[in-house]
Amino acid sequence: MRRASFDDMACSVAQSLEIIGEWWTPLILRDAFLGVSRFGDFQERLGIARNILAARLDALVEHGVMKKVAYQDHPPRYDYKLTEKGRDLWLVVAALREWGDRWEAPDGPPVEMVHQTCGNVTHVVPCCSECGEELSPFELRPVRGPGATDRSAVAS
Amino acid sequence: MRRASFDDMACSVAQSLEIIGEWWTPLILRDAFLGVSRFGDFQERLGIARNILAARLDALVEHGVMKKVAYQDHPPRYDYKLTEKGRDLWLVVAALREWGDRWEAPDGPPVEMVHQTCGNVTHVVPCCSECGEELSPFELRPVRGPGATDRSAVAS
Repeated sequence: MRRASFDDMACSVAQSLEIIGEWWTPLILRDAFLGVSRFGDFQERLGIARNILAARLDALVEHGVMKKVAYQDHPPRYDYKLTEKGRDLWLVVAALREWGDRWEAPDGPPVEMVHQTCGNVTHVVPCCSECGEELSPFELRPVRGPGATDRSAVAS
Repeated sequence: MRRASFDDMACSVAQSLEIIGEWWTPLILRDAFLGVSRFGDFQERLGIARNILAARLDALVEHGVMKKVAYQDHPPRYDYKLTEKGRDLWLVVAALREWGDRWEAPDGPPVEMVHQTCGNVTHVVPCCSECGEELSPFELRPVRGPGATDRSAVAS
């Protein structure tokens, strides 16, 4: 069954899911952030069917999230590398990981991140771009932006 | 076709997707953060089939992300409210929204967030919980955590 498309929703959450909401894609991105770039390495680490992996990687290339970089000509072979648009998904993957660490990791986090600048195991604290204070969802008020339409999801 | 389960992966990204990776679920969460709580309101805003919406809401309740609160006894009717675990997904939804705003919103963001503390339209800046500096993915080094297993996705 083909799912509905979110293409006509004026909502950036929906537009993002249109690209990375496909099952497996966030885990492909996770591995790409860990330095994986070869088709066979993704395949082995994820235990994913080759045709599904190929379709997901092709979709990420098509949407500009990853790019193919040839590392061998005969036969042609490619590294799959994150683009700037792809690297910008870092916070999405980090937020998913940290939530899972807090709520779905009874033995503790399987993986932790060391902030090399300060040398400590770090967690993401979301701060305001304008005043620098830590952000809380209770202090945020949604307003219509320049791209709003009648279907924009501002308030109930 | 039943998809594979990520249950046996020692990875908090995978565990999170096991719960919120279902198609539609992040948009249900988005609306819940905007204050929507009634079945009919979710249904109307999302244009989603009632049986699919019911299954997604049931799964979120089962996983402790939402809770049902009766607002009427005859016939029984419920509000669907985010729990603490659900509200803690805020950064996942915000990160998806902001990425979509940057890369998939050619007319500008459909929705913006005003930080009521400072009064400005805000964006999330991810900061280090330990030193307070802005985090960049290039300064993070993954290490095995207490919940690591042989299948933990630390490095390629």
